[in-house]
Amino acid sequence: MEGKKVVVVGAGPVGSLAALYASKRGADVEIYELRGDLRNAETTPLNFTKSINLALSERGINALRSAEVPELLQAVLAQTIPMHGRMIHTRSPTGALSEQSQLYDVHGRFQRSVDRGGLNKVLLDHLGSLPNVKFFFQHKMTGADFRKKKGWFELSDKSGSSDRAKEIEVDFDLLIGADGAHSATRYHMMKFARTDYHQEYIDCLWCEFTMPATKSGDFAISPNHLHIWPAGSFMFIALPNLDKSFVCTFFGPVDLFVRLEKAPDTELVQTFDKYFPGVSNYIQPDDLVAQFKRNPHLPLINIKCSPHHFSDSVVIVGDAANAMVPFYGQGMNAGMESVRVLFSQLDEYPNTAEALTKYTDQRTKDAHTIADLALGNYAEMRHSVTSPLYKWRKYIEETLDKYFPSLGWATQYSRVSFSNLRYSEVVQHSKSQKQILTFLLLAVTVTAAVGPAAAVWAYLLRFRMSKHFLSGLRR
Amino acid sequence: MEGKKVVVVGAGPVGSLAALYASKRGADVEIYELRGDLRNAETTPLNFTKSINLALSERGINALRSAEVPELLQAVLAQTIPMHGRMIHTRSPTGALSEQSQLYDVHGRFQRSVDRGGLNKVLLDHLGSLPNVKFFFQHKMTGADFRKKKGWFELSDKSGSSDRAKEIEVDFDLLIGADGAHSATRYHMMKFARTDYHQEYIDCLWCEFTMPATKSGDFAISPNHLHIWPAGSFMFIALPNLDKSFVCTFFGPVDLFVRLEKAPDTELVQTFDKYFPGVSNYIQPDDLVAQFKRNPHLPLINIKCSPHHFSDSVVIVGDAANAMVPFYGQGMNAGMESVRVLFSQLDEYPNTAEALTKYTDQRTKDAHTIADLALGNYAEMRHSVTSPLYKWRKYIEETLDKYFPSLGWATQYSRVSFSNLRYSEVVQHSKSQKQILTFLLLAVTVTAAVGPAAAVWAYLLRFRMSKHFLSGLRR
Repeated sequence: MEGKKVVVVGAGPVGSLAALYASKRGADVEIYELRGDLRNAETTPLNFTKSINLALSERGINALRSAEVPELLQAVLAQTIPMHGRMIHTRSPTGALSEQSQLYDVHGRFQRSVDRGGLNKVLLDHLGSLPNVKFFFQHKMTGADFRKKKGWFELSDKSGSSDRAKEIEVDFDLLIGADGAHSATRYHMMKFARTDYHQEYIDCLWCEFTMPATKSGDFAISPNHLHIWPAGSFMFIALPNLDKSFVCTFFGPVDLFVRLEKAPDTELVQTFDKYFPGVSNYIQPDDLVAQFKRNPHLPLINIKCSPHHFSDSVVIVGDAANAMVPFYGQGMNAGMESVRVLFSQLDEYPNTAEALTKYTDQRTKDAHTIADLALGNYAEMRHSVTSPLYKWRKYIEETLDKYFPSLGWATQYSRVSFSNLRYSEVVQHSKSQKQILTFLLLAVTVTAAVGPAAAVWAYLLRFRMSKHFLSGLRR
Repeated sequence: MEGKKVVVVGAGPVGSLAALYASKRGADVEIYELRGDLRNAETTPLNFTKSINLALSERGINALRSAEVPELLQAVLAQTIPMHGRMIHTRSPTGALSEQSQLYDVHGRFQRSVDRGGLNKVLLDHLGSLPNVKFFFQHKMTGADFRKKKGWFELSDKSGSSDRAKEIEVDFDLLIGADGAHSATRYHMMKFARTDYHQEYIDCLWCEFTMPATKSGDFAISPNHLHIWPAGSFMFIALPNLDKSFVCTFFGPVDLFVRLEKAPDTELVQTFDKYFPGVSNYIQPDDLVAQFKRNPHLPLINIKCSPHHFSDSVVIVGDAANAMVPFYGQGMNAGMESVRVLFSQLDEYPNTAEALTKYTDQRTKDAHTIADLALGNYAEMRHSVTSPLYKWRKYIEETLDKYFPSLGWATQYSRVSFSNLRYSEVVQHSKSQKQILTFLLLAVTVTAAVGPAAAVWAYLLRFRMSKHFLSGLRR
């Protein structure tokens, strides 16, 4: 990409990583970001970093690793807290609090809790040190001609409203849109590319809570777990922060939120006490009510589209192409992986149009798969984590993985979170494993049933034969 | 709507009808249209009226009728040509041309072929005579705040590019978006309403052809049919024009178009001769090639979304909410029906927010149904119209409809095209009828089979009995 001009729209973790990859390949990189620089408190609205707390796992780490800036990867990892498993909080039939730890992986691999803003800053700081990268914060994309390779950006103020008089025209060789679920790049690209596009809001809202550190300055609950309070149709989760607080999220159907918004404060507290046992030990009831009222109640969107590019001039990555619900902890990981996969195609095919076509061909399949998996995992987190069948399958699969590693057995969760196998192949493996497990279960059932059945049959046959024998004697 | 300001975006047939309904109810109506006035050749780009030729049927007519301007309805109907059925063109095994007429309806009801531009002009002329309707042509919607009920429009030139300096701000009580499949209203509405939105391009392109009148100035083929040349995965159709020419459309998979675009001219002519027998008698081969090269090869989009409104300030109708493929001839009819349904809700519920909610609740279901039916009809037109099973079912259903009208039997096609029953209810009726037909078929089969079977059984039994009888004799 020597001498090429690459424009990246969006300076979040995925856009920053895309800029880093492009700059490594010798491109002249310009990053346009709607918001202000999040490292500058003056220009950054308070809610900029507002986002479900993030789990960083292998795919994200591998994408950082493949950027080949070891000190950057180290700086990111230093900001993370390992989460070795889920901690499932329930109340036993006697009313006692119960905490059950479910490790993520038999080989000891783990998720990492990371602050989105912190991760983003590390990336921006590194980019700021590179001579071939320029930032344009508070620049709103207002249009693009992807045949002429021109984009238009307006200088916007802190509130996001822009000044039309200050519009600039920007040429580029390639524009990478990493501008999130409501991507302007995607919107303008769809005027050029015939795009199949699906977006849906799921019947779920979320509200963020903070669980403070204890008075003695320690974590209130285990820092090395992702905590889940499953309640069937809704749930509460908590991820550790470096400052020993937890970022918590309450997820529930729209109806429940509407009811709680209208109900007296006591109902929220009672609902939490009933379904999220122990939470009110760590977040005081009046604080709980205050946070529920203060923090926004936000929707969750699921986006699938194809293609992810047009011609040789524009490509979308991360949430812009593949926004998913947060229940597999894969949103950012998938976004960063999409950057790695994109540049591996650009490295392989010198013809950019060909590289982008190959990228769409490969990536849309995986993007749609992980979006579906994330939707499916919502039911698992709210409900299945406590079901015997779920635990049984997890146990069987993990035992096979642990004691017969040469079989290449692994849970779907492990392959998604701790490998770099394509998402679509992960699902293929899981389907095969399910078939084998079902067959084994059937074989065991048949074996277990055939023995007694044969005995009964032999007994009945003997009885009938002896009856014949007796009747023969009688004749 | 007395004293209310209603802004309609889009001055096509659906937008014009919406403006008419609003003006009838005493609103101050302003119509904003991206393009120039199609009645003014100076400002109208040549391709403005470019669209698949339209079939007007009961739903569209009923929506015009319900506007309660009898002379308008008469003026529209005077511009239409009745099409009583499909004419299926095939080649018989001996190579002879075969034309088979399939009437649309046993009660003699028919489709009407209409020129989109002509229909549109009649509506615009009528609106132009109303004191409470104002036109703003060449105005491009650039933004809207549907909480503050403000929209922004820029004056655009003939080519569609707009001048930012000439932006105007428009207040409204209600904005009706009838601005087509690529609706700006919908785009801006989706920033306010949490919208489930699906768009997909089907694997089909289309190219328009003109079949001229004969030298003696007559229609080349029957003027009272919709002509179809079905060819399995592609087809050619023709609808009559008032000037005795036909507007024809060639529909086919993208691959076929790509192949024909690259192939020598003779291949197009050979393909037409092979699959669309007789067409080259009416369109000369060199004209056929010239038209295929000159006319654009365009995609077909299918759009479903929900809701169709936000709050009490904006609602989308027609293609903006419900773009479908053209194979049921229902696009414009459904769009005009959506206007009628919208205003029936506005008439029933004085609270606009409530009326729009009711409208979305009712209409999204019907919109999704007709979009699916239209997709399904593509296979029917290309292929099923020649299948014996299809003809058999059509025959049975039409016979029941004709001779036992009190049964309320009707084909799905009749209910869609010649009734005002909700699309979703049409599909329910068709499902019930299919179950009854299947049951009847089963009953007939059983009756037909039981008689002979009983005879065989009686014969065998007699044989066996006589054998026993004989063996008894022998003992």
